[in-house]
Amino acid sequence: MKATAIANTNIALIKYWGKRDETLFLPMNSSLSITLDSFFTVTTVEFCKNFDKDVFFLNELQATDKESNKVFIFLNKVRDLAGTNLHARICSENRVPTAAGFASSASGFAALAAAATRALELQLSEKELSMLARQGSGSACRSVYGGFVEWQKGIQIDGKDSFAKQILSEKSWDISILSVLLVAEPKKVSSTEGMKRTVKTSPFYSGWLSTVEKDLEEAKEAISSRDFEKLGIIVEANAMKMHATMLGANPPILYWQKGSIDVIHHIHKLRSEGIYAYFTIDAGPNVKVLCLPKDEKIVYESLLSLTDVQEVIICHPGSGIKYLE
Amino acid sequence: MKATAIANTNIALIKYWGKRDETLFLPMNSSLSITLDSFFTVTTVEFCKNFDKDVFFLNELQATDKESNKVFIFLNKVRDLAGTNLHARICSENRVPTAAGFASSASGFAALAAAATRALELQLSEKELSMLARQGSGSACRSVYGGFVEWQKGIQIDGKDSFAKQILSEKSWDISILSVLLVAEPKKVSSTEGMKRTVKTSPFYSGWLSTVEKDLEEAKEAISSRDFEKLGIIVEANAMKMHATMLGANPPILYWQKGSIDVIHHIHKLRSEGIYAYFTIDAGPNVKVLCLPKDEKIVYESLLSLTDVQEVIICHPGSGIKYLE
Repeated sequence: MKATAIANTNIALIKYWGKRDETLFLPMNSSLSITLDSFFTVTTVEFCKNFDKDVFFLNELQATDKESNKVFIFLNKVRDLAGTNLHARICSENRVPTAAGFASSASGFAALAAAATRALELQLSEKELSMLARQGSGSACRSVYGGFVEWQKGIQIDGKDSFAKQILSEKSWDISILSVLLVAEPKKVSSTEGMKRTVKTSPFYSGWLSTVEKDLEEAKEAISSRDFEKLGIIVEANAMKMHATMLGANPPILYWQKGSIDVIHHIHKLRSEGIYAYFTIDAGPNVKVLCLPKDEKIVYESLLSLTDVQEVIICHPGSGIKYLE
Repeated sequence: MKATAIANTNIALIKYWGKRDETLFLPMNSSLSITLDSFFTVTTVEFCKNFDKDVFFLNELQATDKESNKVFIFLNKVRDLAGTNLHARICSENRVPTAAGFASSASGFAALAAAATRALELQLSEKELSMLARQGSGSACRSVYGGFVEWQKGIQIDGKDSFAKQILSEKSWDISILSVLLVAEPKKVSSTEGMKRTVKTSPFYSGWLSTVEKDLEEAKEAISSRDFEKLGIIVEANAMKMHATMLGANPPILYWQKGSIDVIHHIHKLRSEGIYAYFTIDAGPNVKVLCLPKDEKIVYESLLSLTDVQEVIICHPGSGIKYLE
């Protein structure tokens, strides 16, 4: 009745932006990500008939009520699946620097889904696990798999066709992902709120939806043919479009800080010098830079030379969920 | 056969972005501007039967072929109106810092249209002069008038209903416009090219068109009721939307530099402290800040404290075209 799972976080190359169902975490569009090797969550879940309530420890401290409630609500879904009402003790360790702008919720809910179902001896397929993790945090459904992963949005209202699948293993194509930590203030608008406001008020949201599936197809073609330059151009343009939809929201949402713009122009400068680096930015100020492993060192050092850059962490494609016995 | 005219430049509060006719300078949407008192062009035009060709001096130097050709082509339209083929000598002095990101073409073509028609003793109404100036540079049609000016896009293919008109005199409402000059590189994509690419490739352009006329109506209401806060919010959101349409272009266009973002966040911070300042940004990195005259000094000084700010120039609403006898 006890299990431990490790899940890596992932970064979206084709962005997930907007929910069609807030409760089931069903997305308006399909998305595509790389699971990373350096940022992960380790979670141990133990069910026991002697526990009189759920408890959740995050990084060895009792979690806040807000954090705990999200986890306990998710746990109810797992208990429903197993037909049990046992309470649980959950210990999570996040090796995802929050300041890096990586959503620890992706690795967090993937690890939780895996550990909790394993502890209750539920035999879920990866697809079922992906669907379950999605109901904790949308992007968590992608962290079930390693390498390059697609989340098919699905069209059913029950979400039974909305899950992720691997499109290329982490061992099949090595690229470098540099996570650039900027000197930046905490973001004022959460992703959930940002998505909601964008879908509801931005005149650009229909333009986003009308082009994102094409971006996804082209990105998959680029991955399939290992065409890094083609992939980079699509990824960059897709990130720009996501941020543009938010600038059209009412009131406008601007996640970028001055350092974000500095990195963007720096990447363009690198390309003009023949170094194929590309950026993507999630709903926050921090920038992730993609390049080929052969250029990793020069890109890394040049990024560190920028005034507003605090730290650069190098990642590579990582594996899907693993269990510790 | 000689006349001198002065025209002030203007800054768009509701942006002109996209042409429906490249030759006649017909816009896709209506726009609204303030004519400024501090940046202007003085132009003298002299026609003479002894001149064997057109010559154009800009800031006391013979202009480049590219600059001259635009002016001579425009002059042909004036000559057509007057039924003459006399050559001309044109001397222009631009008091518009190019680095400020103000289009000197607005004041430039307004002054040229006024001086050239006056020199040929054409009796044009302001409306006719606005339509003529428009054919040199779209935004020049607004610089014919002082104060708050609306450019009605018109719907006719010959452009006879596309001209500007004053909606409020410069004497009726004083506001402060601070032009913030940033440490920035020259822009790589011209406004003309930027507009063209956006109209042709951005999935957001239809969203722009579907909301800009409403922005314009609300801005006019705010001006009519002297509601500065309401005006500021619309102006800021409209600028964000214009830049968002470009981020959606293929390839994306990003006119902002890191200093631009710094000023944006700074303005938001000022507002959170109760100082009603708002920004707008044209197709370039530089930011213009609007505030009430009572807050002018504090906004000015706080902007100067930002790292990437080189200079801040304070303007107020200025007059329309004037002639020097």
